[in-house]
Amino acid sequence: MGGCSSQSCHRCFFEYETERMIVVKSKVVGSVFRLIQFLILFYVIGYVCVVQKSYQETDSVISSVTTKVKGTGFTNTSDLGGRVWDVADYNIPPQGESSFFVLTNMIVTPNQTQSTCPELPNQSTICMSDSDCLEGSNDVRGNGIQTGLCMNYSETVKTCEVLSWCPLEIDINLPERNILPDVNSSYLKQCEFNRKTDPDCPIFRLKDMVSEAEEDFQTMATRGGVLGIMIDWNCDLDWPEHYCGPKYSFRRLDNKIPENNVAPGYNFRFAKYYKTTDGRETRTLIKAYGIRFDVIVFGTAGKFNMVPTIVNVGAALTFLSLVSSVKWSHLQNTHYL
Amino acid sequence: MGGCSSQSCHRCFFEYETERMIVVKSKVVGSVFRLIQFLILFYVIGYVCVVQKSYQETDSVISSVTTKVKGTGFTNTSDLGGRVWDVADYNIPPQGESSFFVLTNMIVTPNQTQSTCPELPNQSTICMSDSDCLEGSNDVRGNGIQTGLCMNYSETVKTCEVLSWCPLEIDINLPERNILPDVNSSYLKQCEFNRKTDPDCPIFRLKDMVSEAEEDFQTMATRGGVLGIMIDWNCDLDWPEHYCGPKYSFRRLDNKIPENNVAPGYNFRFAKYYKTTDGRETRTLIKAYGIRFDVIVFGTAGKFNMVPTIVNVGAALTFLSLVSSVKWSHLQNTHYL
Amino acid sequence: MGGCSSQSCHRCFFEYETERMIVVKSKVVGSVFRLIQFLILFYVIGYVCVVQKSYQETDSVISSVTTKVKGTGFTNTSDLGGRVWDVADYNIPPQGESSFFVLTNMIVTPNQTQSTCPELPNQSTICMSDSDCLEGSNDVRGNGIQTGLCMNYSETVKTCEVLSWCPLEIDINLPERNILPDVNSSYLKQCEFNRKTDPDCPIFRLKDMVSEAEEDFQTMATRGGVLGIMIDWNCDLDWPEHYCGPKYSFRRLDNKIPENNVAPGYNFRFAKYYKTTDGRETRTLIKAYGIRFDVIVFGTAGKFNMVPTIVNVGAALTFLSLVSSVKWSHLQNTHYL
Repeated sequence: MGGCSSQSCHRCFFEYETERMIVVKSKVVGSVFRLIQFLILFYVIGYVCVVQKSYQETDSVISSVTTKVKGTGFTNTSDLGGRVWDVADYNIPPQGESSFFVLTNMIVTPNQTQSTCPELPNQSTICMSDSDCLEGSNDVRGNGIQTGLCMNYSETVKTCEVLSWCPLEIDINLPERNILPDVNSSYLKQCEFNRKTDPDCPIFRLKDMVSEAEEDFQTMATRGGVLGIMIDWNCDLDWPEHYCGPKYSFRRLDNKIPENNVAPGYNFRFAKYYKTTDGRETRTLIKAYGIRFDVIVFGTAGKFNMVPTIVNVGAALTFLSLVSSVKWSHLQNTHYL
Repeated sequence: MGGCSSQSCHRCFFEYETERMIVVKSKVVGSVFRLIQFLILFYVIGYVCVVQKSYQETDSVISSVTTKVKGTGFTNTSDLGGRVWDVADYNIPPQGESSFFVLTNMIVTPNQTQSTCPELPNQSTICMSDSDCLEGSNDVRGNGIQTGLCMNYSETVKTCEVLSWCPLEIDINLPERNILPDVNSSYLKQCEFNRKTDPDCPIFRLKDMVSEAEEDFQTMATRGGVLGIMIDWNCDLDWPEHYCGPKYSFRRLDNKIPENNVAPGYNFRFAKYYKTTDGRETRTLIKAYGIRFDVIVFGTAGKFNMVPTIVNVGAALTFLSLVSSVKWSHLQNTHYL
Repeated sequence: MGGCSSQSCHRCFFEYETERMIVVKSKVVGSVFRLIQFLILFYVIGYVCVVQKSYQETDSVISSVTTKVKGTGFTNTSDLGGRVWDVADYNIPPQGESSFFVLTNMIVTPNQTQSTCPELPNQSTICMSDSDCLEGSNDVRGNGIQTGLCMNYSETVKTCEVLSWCPLEIDINLPERNILPDVNSSYLKQCEFNRKTDPDCPIFRLKDMVSEAEEDFQTMATRGGVLGIMIDWNCDLDWPEHYCGPKYSFRRLDNKIPENNVAPGYNFRFAKYYKTTDGRETRTLIKAYGIRFDVIVFGTAGKFNMVPTIVNVGAALTFLSLVSSVKWSHLQNTHYL
C-alpha cells in the first residue's frame, strides 16, 4: 500500500492514499445506479436477513425422546378366544429409545416344539417319494433342515419333512381383525393433540396420528406400517425462549405401493418360550403386524453471530462496489475519455 | 473492463487499468484509518481464525455406540422375598443401540390370567348395582372390557367387573427400595471414570453418573428417570489425530418438576408369560421403574479448506477496502475538491 | 457517498461518482494480471462450483430404517442337541429401530433358580474356611451375595458360597460353532446386493456384508462384533430426483484389536424365565454372541440458493478487485509517480 521506503516508514504509516473522483451528473445513469443499489439493499435486508436469517450462526438439534402408550383392546378370534390386550401385550419391545411398536394384527402358532413335520407345500418342497428330498439340505426359503423323508402334508399333497419348530406357521391368511382404535395414548384427564385447537399438546390418539398422515387406520392396522412422528423444533434464539416450541406432523414412512415393494406393511416374528412339565421347551410363535411409530426430531437453532453477518454483508457490499467500479467503467470511458 | 474494440483485442488483453492515487498526509486521518485497519485485522485473526475457526470446513459426527452393564444387586421385599438381580434381570431389553435401561424399582403382579375381576375403584368404576355397569364398555382409563356386573372390590366398595389380566395391578404404593448402587459398569480391573483424575475412561459407576448430573441416586432410582451420557467429540483435524478424543458429561433429560409434568419419572410395563400344567397362559406383570441411559454423541470435525477461508477473508477485505473508499470520501472531498 | 449538502439532495441522489483510470500498456504486467485473473476465475468455476458445489444450500438427511432378517440355521451341540434356529430365535430383540442383532454363538446355562452355590474360583473367592467369607458381601466381580460359608466348588477347590441364580454360568470356554452362514436376508426371488453387478439392491447376504467389511465371517461369528451398514445418500437436487439414490458400504465398527480393548467382540446376556409346576421361578440364562448390524444413514442434499452463491462469488470478486487495486499499486507508483 503506497510506495514507502524504510527510512520514511514512520511518516508513511500515517499517510493515507485516496482516489480522485469524478461526479457524473446524468439522471439516466443515476437512476439505473440507484435502482441497482436499491436491489442489492433489498436483497440484503429482505432476503438475507428476514427470509434466510443468514446473520445467524446455526446449530442442529440434539434430542432424546420418551414415549408412553396407554389403553386396552379386545379381540375375539377362533384361535385365541376372547382376549384383552393391554400395553404389556401389544407394545413390543416394552421400551425403545425413540420408537415404539403397537401390535395391531397377528398370526399365532402355539405349542411349537423342536421336532419334525412336513414343509409347507411350494414348488421346491412338494415330493413324490423320499428320493425327491435331500437329507441335510437347508433351503433359504424353507423353515428348517430336511430329514430326507417325503411325508403327507395333507390328504392330497406330500412334502419333504424338515427338522424345525413344529407345527410350522401358516401365514397365508392374514386375519382382518376389526380392532377399534381405542388403544390411545391419553388419560383424557390431560390435553389431547388437535391440529386446530391444541397443536402443542404432546398426547396423541393413535387414530388421529394415522389420519393426520392421511392413511386409513383399519388398512394400516391389518398389514402394519411405519408412521413418523416428525417433531420440527426450529428456534430463533434471538427471541425469548418462550417462542421456541416444537411443531408436530405425521407421515407414513414405509412404502405402501405393493408394486415396487418386496414386503408391504411392517411385521416381525417373536416367540414366547415355555417349558412343559417334563422339561421340554415349547414356544408360541407370533408373527406380529403393527404400526411402528418413529419419533424423528429435527430442526436448527439460530443466534446472531458476527462471522456469518460480516460474510453476508461483505459479499453484498462487494457487489455494491462492483456496480460503481466495474459495470459503469464502459459508460465512463465513452463519456469522458 | 476498459473500452476495447474488437480490432485491438489482442493488445487490449495485455492492457492493465489502474487508478491515480492521492496521498493524504494527516496524523489524525492516518491514525483513525490505521486503527480501523487494525480492528478489522484483529477480527480476522483473533475472532475468525482463532475463536471461530472459520477457515475450516466442518462435518458433523456419525457414531455407533455399544454399552455393557455389570454387577449384581440384592433386594428383600415382602412379595418376592430375598432375591439377587443380575444383568439379565435388570437390563431391559437386553441390548439396545445407544440406550440402556437399568431397573431400579418395580411393582410385580404375579400369576395374572385372562379372567374377570372387579375394576380398581375410582369415580367412574364404583357401582351400586349391575345397572351402573355397561356390558362391553371399554374405558380408556380402565383395565379391560366391562362385563356388566357389579362386584365387591373390597368389603366396603363395589366396582364394575372387567374381563382383563386378573388380578389387576395396584400401582398406588410405590416401594421405596433401599438399593445400594453397587450395580456398576466396571470390573475395577480397568480404569474408572473420574472427572478430575481419569476424564477419558469410558467405564462409569452408575452412582457417579447420577451425581455428575447433580441428581440424587436414591430419589432417581425410586421414580425412574432418563439420564443423558453426552459425548462431545469435537476435533480439529489440522492437528494430529492424537488430540481428537471424546469429552463426557452427564445430564438429566426428563422433566423432574412434578408441577408441569404428566407422569414424573420413567417407567414402563412388561410381562413374563408362563403356561400352567393344564396349558392355560399366565403372566407376571412388572411395572418397571428405572434409569434409562441415553448415549448422545455430538460434535463437529473441522479441517482447513479453501472455500470458507476465501469467503471469510474476502468479506473482511471488503470491509477493509470500504474503509479506504467509502468512509473517507467525505474527508477527501472537504480537503481536496 | 460523495459530498452532498441537504439543499441539493435531490440532485445529488441522481449523481454518480466514478474514478479516472490510467491504462498500463505493458506485456509483462498485463500477462501476470491476466494470469491471476484466470486463476481466480478457475478457482470460482472449477473448485467452488464444480468440486465443492458452494452455490448450493445444503441440508442433512433425516432417515428411518426398517430391517428384516430371513433364513434358518442348524446347530448340534452337546448341551442343546440338534436344534434349528429361526428368526424368532436368533434375532434379539425381535425388532429395533435402525439396528438388528443376529445371534451367532452362545453359552447356555439352563434351569437356574434363585438359590445358593459356590462362587466361580478366582483370587478373591477361593477360601479355606468360613472365616475367609464375609456374609452379605457383594463383590462387583462376583455373581451374588455371599452367605458366609465356604463350600467345595470342585474336589480340589473351595470357594465362598453365594446367593444367586444357580448354577452359575461358566463362560470360559466359548464354543467354536461351525455355523454355515446360510442365515441370510434374501428370498432369492428378488435381487441380491453385489458391489459390481447389483450395487443398488437393498437385500444383503450376511456373508457378503461381513466380507465387504474385509472381515472373516467365522471369526466374527464366534466372538461377535458390530458391523455398520453405511448408507450414503448424497443428493444434488438441481438434477432430477431419479439420480438421487443410496450407496451402500460396510465397515466393522467395534475395535477388534485385543490389546487396547476391555472386552473384544460383542455379547450380552438375556434370560428366558419359566415356572416349575410348584410355582417356583426358573430361568435359562443365555450369553449371546453375535453380530449387531447398525444401519447408519448419512448424506447431504444440496440445491441452488442465492445466499451461498452471492457469498462465494462476492468473496472471489473481492480478491479479483484486490489484484487490480492493492497488489499493483507499487508498480504504478514506480511507473507514474
